Amino acid sequence: MAEINGNFLNLEESYLFSDIAKKVAAYQKAHPEKRVIRLGIGDVTLPLTPSVTAALHAAVDEMGKAETFHGYGPEQGYDFLRNEIAAYYQSRGVELDAGEIFVSDGAKSDIGNITDLFSSENTALIPDPVYPVYVDTNLMNGRRIVYLKAGESNGFLPMPPAEAKAGLIYLCSPNNPTGAVYSKEQLEKWVEYALDCGAVILFDAAYEAYIADPSLPHSIYEIKGAERCAIEFCSLSKTAGFTGTRLGYTVVPYALTAAFGGKEVSLNRLWLRRQTTKFNGVPYIIQKGAQAVFSPEGQKETQELVTYYMKNASVIAEALSAKGIPYVGGINSPYIWMKCPEGLKSWEFFDELLNRCSVVGTPGAGFGANGEGFFRLTSFGNHQDTIEAMERFSAAF
Amino acid sequence: MAEINGNFLNLEESYLFSDIAKKVAAYQKAHPEKRVIRLGIGDVTLPLTPSVTAALHAAVDEMGKAETFHGYGPEQGYDFLRNEIAAYYQSRGVELDAGEIFVSDGAKSDIGNITDLFSSENTALIPDPVYPVYVDTNLMNGRRIVYLKAGESNGFLPMPPAEAKAGLIYLCSPNNPTGAVYSKEQLEKWVEYALDCGAVILFDAAYEAYIADPSLPHSIYEIKGAERCAIEFCSLSKTAGFTGTRLGYTVVPYALTAAFGGKEVSLNRLWLRRQTTKFNGVPYIIQKGAQAVFSPEGQKETQELVTYYMKNASVIAEALSAKGIPYVGGINSPYIWMKCPEGLKSWEFFDELLNRCSVVGTPGAGFGANGEGFFRLTSFGNHQDTIEAMERFSAAF
Repeated sequence: MAEINGNFLNLEESYLFSDIAKKVAAYQKAHPEKRVIRLGIGDVTLPLTPSVTAALHAAVDEMGKAETFHGYGPEQGYDFLRNEIAAYYQSRGVELDAGEIFVSDGAKSDIGNITDLFSSENTALIPDPVYPVYVDTNLMNGRRIVYLKAGESNGFLPMPPAEAKAGLIYLCSPNNPTGAVYSKEQLEKWVEYALDCGAVILFDAAYEAYIADPSLPHSIYEIKGAERCAIEFCSLSKTAGFTGTRLGYTVVPYALTAAFGGKEVSLNRLWLRRQTTKFNGVPYIIQKGAQAVFSPEGQKETQELVTYYMKNASVIAEALSAKGIPYVGGINSPYIWMKCPEGLKSWEFFDELLNRCSVVGTPGAGFGANGEGFFRLTSFGNHQDTIEAMERFSAAF
Repeated sequence: MAEINGNFLNLEESYLFSDIAKKVAAYQKAHPEKRVIRLGIGDVTLPLTPSVTAALHAAVDEMGKAETFHGYGPEQGYDFLRNEIAAYYQSRGVELDAGEIFVSDGAKSDIGNITDLFSSENTALIPDPVYPVYVDTNLMNGRRIVYLKAGESNGFLPMPPAEAKAGLIYLCSPNNPTGAVYSKEQLEKWVEYALDCGAVILFDAAYEAYIADPSLPHSIYEIKGAERCAIEFCSLSKTAGFTGTRLGYTVVPYALTAAFGGKEVSLNRLWLRRQTTKFNGVPYIIQKGAQAVFSPEGQKETQELVTYYMKNASVIAEALSAKGIPYVGGINSPYIWMKCPEGLKSWEFFDELLNRCSVVGTPGAGFGANGEGFFRLTSFGNHQDTIEAMERFSAAF
């Protein structure tokens, strides 16, 4: 008799984006003359760059000829790409061996799948508001979650709790949804805490390329000792426009171990075993496209994408500043996390913004209890649209 | 304190293919004048077909322009592809809704990840010899395994056990490694058994395209009632040469439920929840390439690939028949599972075949205890090489 994993029944259905879509559709139907502008999307809009498409075309040609065809590749990624990623880290002063880097189809997959490695008896510390994947994947394992409040009082950057003994710690910096970025000193405190209690930090660095301030760390491994307590997830989705092209990478240092029955077990070996058993690698074609992202020309193009989106972030941030509306993010991050004006709740402001301005954003309450009263705007839209949206907002609020 | 999932420590390291590589390297070093032919590989060697590469190029061009760029797609795959797959099933008389089809990066990933849905208290019935992924992914969950002996006495096609009450049942037809194929009547018995005891059949149909005999089922859903007890995994890896391009699909029928606390839970909904939470879909580019596989021209090209490999299978099968060596597979399957000649054990025959003929195969013992005394040859090599390898074999044994 097959019995399901009952932990799935503890998951809440997420209606956030479907509820938004329904509200927008109803509004558009009632007001067909209005042009709706979306500042709610977490997806990029600029196309793949010329270096990347050239590399993809060349790889397709290789796959079409017997002499250059590629069948099964290494599950953890080709060395030509892992070496480029290692060099990218090195350019930020972080020394990694290619064997510590695992190429995957995206940070979301790895952040979910990494939970396979850990006992469901571990407690997970997770910030609130939060990227829902951290919560749901732990609920699927039946793991206990302790939420860390991210709010105005701590600049949306929770610090280690005095009490809780964690097994797993989720940190995301620059943060989704808040846009807040941890300083080096703050991450040092987290590393110290993790080393103290033997916890593993799961560090989501998917937005690292948006950091402009040279004092802010892009990688947890810029912190001494992190190689003994942290796994880092990164992605080309938001940097090189790979949301529909799918490539991420996860760093599991050789020095990282966890306990079992008094034994120290290498998490790098454990993840390699997981990936070689349950994964078959990223398409050769896509890995060649990703390699081009790390070329000098590819890096220049990627920087142009980031610059374009960050001009949007500035437009949003300036409009909010001019109104005296509190917000975080918008600098060093593509997300802007604003306090809802006029004392509105998240969904109330959503309705007002839609009705008064025909602009769509994301209610903060959708990211957790502590998101209530806040609202997420993103900089991934068209530049002219972003300007117009904020002009409408400035006139209406 | 982070504690690992201790079940990982129950996994045996697999040295099968690394041991083979070491032996071949040593042989080649000792005999640099010998040309080694490999009939051990489970990977395809013919390139992607013209329809597929044309579609891939066109999709790359789309991704390079803002107007036709694709960001995040549906996690379960684009409808343009799911509809093609539904039509493919329909051409075999199986009616599926596109919502019952989930596109993924390959059957291996899905076969591993599907275990997320089930309680670790379920017993898994697994044939021996076996594709090691079935065993290892269940060990990672701490699930009890009952092995079903596949041997000469049952034509390498184990039937339902009288005693064991199963939760999960793994069937692979055409089988890897043995090449044996279940008949309609045999699968009817399995479906009856599964419905009787409320088990879920996990049916691996990755090699279905190699079936030539029209009486043999390609899909478990050709059996009445299977939509209430079976999940099917399929892949373009071995049919369209996608081992390095990565696309598979999994069918979870709407009618399939499993129990929890007296409730009936839809496995289609559960898998959708798993995939939307832990997966972000297959690259748009790759899905467009896969769509081309299902076009009339793509199907014709795919059939040519299969025909080429099956000519190799015939060469191997004829050589074994001429020697009176028992084997299974080679018809309706790209694998040939032979009894080791001269009473040799699997690894002894490996050494003899390498030393006498400079030919490499895969020792059956590497696929489980019941593989001892058997040997796997594959038809995925070059045709002239396959002929030469079997000529060498015929002269030497």
